[in-house]
Amino acid sequence: MEAKKIYAQALTDEAFAPFGSVVQQKDDVKMVSANGGTAKKYLKVSESIQNYEKSSSASTRKGVWNFFSTHPSVHPANDEHAAFQISVLERHPFTTQTFIPMCRSSDEQAYLIAVAPNAPDGMPDWNQTQAFVAKGAQGVTYSAGVWHAPMVTIGKETMLAAFNYENGVAEDDCQVQSTESPIEVFIKIST
Amino acid sequence: MEAKKIYAQALTDEAFAPFGSVVQQKDDVKMVSANGGTAKKYLKVSESIQNYEKSSSASTRKGVWNFFSTHPSVHPANDEHAAFQISVLERHPFTTQTFIPMCRSSDEQAYLIAVAPNAPDGMPDWNQTQAFVAKGAQGVTYSAGVWHAPMVTIGKETMLAAFNYENGVAEDDCQVQSTESPIEVFIKIST
Repeated sequence: MEAKKIYAQALTDEAFAPFGSVVQQKDDVKMVSANGGTAKKYLKVSESIQNYEKSSSASTRKGVWNFFSTHPSVHPANDEHAAFQISVLERHPFTTQTFIPMCRSSDEQAYLIAVAPNAPDGMPDWNQTQAFVAKGAQGVTYSAGVWHAPMVTIGKETMLAAFNYENGVAEDDCQVQSTESPIEVFIKIST
Repeated sequence: MEAKKIYAQALTDEAFAPFGSVVQQKDDVKMVSANGGTAKKYLKVSESIQNYEKSSSASTRKGVWNFFSTHPSVHPANDEHAAFQISVLERHPFTTQTFIPMCRSSDEQAYLIAVAPNAPDGMPDWNQTQAFVAKGAQGVTYSAGVWHAPMVTIGKETMLAAFNYENGVAEDDCQVQSTESPIEVFIKIST
């Protein structure tokens, strides 16, 4: 059976809304002047939420920052290029997860996001997988419980700060599913 | 009376420990391979903590992301340059606050941090103010209640994602103090 192919689209709040939100400068939020007039502060562009009280374990949860140093697993060599194969998705049932890219320029395609809604049984609906390309000035928040591919960076080494809650119980913190028929993600190179 | 002068030092976990932590790649935390071997994940480099239960107000608190687009208020023109004057400090008594810089390269001096411990009366001890220069791959977490200058960026427009908790009660969320005798911060330009 031929691998399913999907095309990555630009990351926008609108397109990504079913899965989470984009941490970026936005025109549809309140903006105030800050820092003695040297800064524009865009308010509440995203939110970090946890509901570990719904988990069966009693462990206390914390708000934790992890730091990723990633090598590109996507090498956009030409206009149409099967950039990446998705064979694993993970989710964090009781917490959002936010990634902020560092050291990539604002107009650069920095990393790839792949997400899938739940099938009726709560597993990933692989056939409805979608992919997005995030630029250097775009962070992303996955809503709690959203199936998403592990971070995939484009073009060069990228560092990302990641924030989520955790209670240290493996099954509460992260659930993983894989597929026998990987999905090919194509990225159109933005010129 | 001549303005007090202080020299900004490099931002390190050790030097900054009394005031918070640095969100960066670290050798003294656990590192695991992630994302199918394409990433190194440095665990728990920082933490976001809130204790709004200690505030007198009943409002519920949220974990909020704000986005800053800042213009440089520091122009390091030569080796010794009074980069910035500190006349205002703020603090968030019930929450940490974390800033992650975007779109600055890892070896660039990206932003200036200025902090002061509490005087016995809980106000800033202006005479003990310290300043740090953060590079493009360094985020910073201010511990709850730490007096710090509003974000000051170096050299060029810088975007930062900021995370903190808030309950919407102004006096709970942010307290501000100013001084009649601003402190001059000098930055040694790293060559």
